[in-house]
Amino acid sequence: MHLEHHVTGSEIIRDIVIGMSDGLTVPFALAAGLSGAISSSGLVVTAGIAEIVAGSIAMGLGGYLAGKTEADHYRSELKREYEEIERVPEQEKIEVREVFAGFGLSEHLQNQIADELAKDKKQWVDFMMRYELGLEEPNPNRATRSAFTIGVSYIIGGIIPLSPYLFISNAQTALGYSCIVTVLCLFIFGYFKSRMTGQPAFAGALKVVVIGALAAGAAFTMAKLINGK
Amino acid sequence: MHLEHHVTGSEIIRDIVIGMSDGLTVPFALAAGLSGAISSSGLVVTAGIAEIVAGSIAMGLGGYLAGKTEADHYRSELKREYEEIERVPEQEKIEVREVFAGFGLSEHLQNQIADELAKDKKQWVDFMMRYELGLEEPNPNRATRSAFTIGVSYIIGGIIPLSPYLFISNAQTALGYSCIVTVLCLFIFGYFKSRMTGQPAFAGALKVVVIGALAAGAAFTMAKLINGK
Repeated sequence: MHLEHHVTGSEIIRDIVIGMSDGLTVPFALAAGLSGAISSSGLVVTAGIAEIVAGSIAMGLGGYLAGKTEADHYRSELKREYEEIERVPEQEKIEVREVFAGFGLSEHLQNQIADELAKDKKQWVDFMMRYELGLEEPNPNRATRSAFTIGVSYIIGGIIPLSPYLFISNAQTALGYSCIVTVLCLFIFGYFKSRMTGQPAFAGALKVVVIGALAAGAAFTMAKLINGK
Repeated sequence: MHLEHHVTGSEIIRDIVIGMSDGLTVPFALAAGLSGAISSSGLVVTAGIAEIVAGSIAMGLGGYLAGKTEADHYRSELKREYEEIERVPEQEKIEVREVFAGFGLSEHLQNQIADELAKDKKQWVDFMMRYELGLEEPNPNRATRSAFTIGVSYIIGGIIPLSPYLFISNAQTALGYSCIVTVLCLFIFGYFKSRMTGQPAFAGALKVVVIGALAAGAAFTMAKLINGK
């Protein structure tokens, strides 16, 4: 019960991190890039919102499909393992032994483990799923929740760098404010993300800011180059 | 050796899938959205390329950092496990027993396994890393290769939907060709992706196409609404 709770919590945080880090970075860089090519904020907003809509759907539904595929994969492997312990139990016992042979356990002990595991089919299959195939049972509601969390996080992340363009009609002026707001948010986001994953928080925050700045700088330069032609 | 090869191959494919599915979808949808608001292809190309640059850097460096974090996490947990089997060996033995108690093995067998594992520290720690913590040793070159593969796949994916806008000056006309080319590529991409992950290929291909179409349709509608004001 405790484990389940822990896993669910970290999955939501992981989804927020996935959605928000791209949401803060890509619309920010796109808006910066367009500001290098055009002077009116109106079109930057149109492009930015089109990007946020496209990105949140692509990432959200992408997350949904990834979750669904994971659950389908687990189910089909589970079914196959149940079939195999019925059809070729001796082969499956050998596979159990091989797992422990890999850790240097004696043959005598390998055989005992395989024989005891084989007494309960559910436990036997559970063991094969986790330790032979390395699969954990996915949460059934995970796919839908994951889609929603990633999509919403992307939208929230994307609106932040775009907001100055909504209020300032000159795109170059808005870009300055967008940089300040976004770098601040990237830093705060990177700081908490690193703390929650147990990484050094300040260094982690700087890394996130550098990625955002590099992406925005490159997009700005590229858009200027194309338009300069 | 064989396992290592297998894992590496599937990781590259996974990175290509990550980069290309977003690369085909988001620039496609952004270009479609802008075509709903402006008539000149020139600005669609500028925005599209700015997006591809931003997206490939954000995703590529994101992949790099994720890989680095994974490797750091593994190393720090490995160090902790070595310290713990020195400092609290009896506690660590209890943790080994608990793993097997979870599969219903007898206490006698649990103790035998824990005692035999404890004879070799490297094997003991390897066991704890994989079966208590569920961690696999990451490939040291993975982070750099992952960044490169995801970034390049995103660029290749993104150039496909953008290419008609390079040759056709009217954005609405170019959009038609972009839809045809991209839907075709999304289908082929989805087909092979599903086959490689062992999913039904035709259904998987349709899903990928539907996500792309939904994202593009929503971006197009949204851009038209904003510009209609």
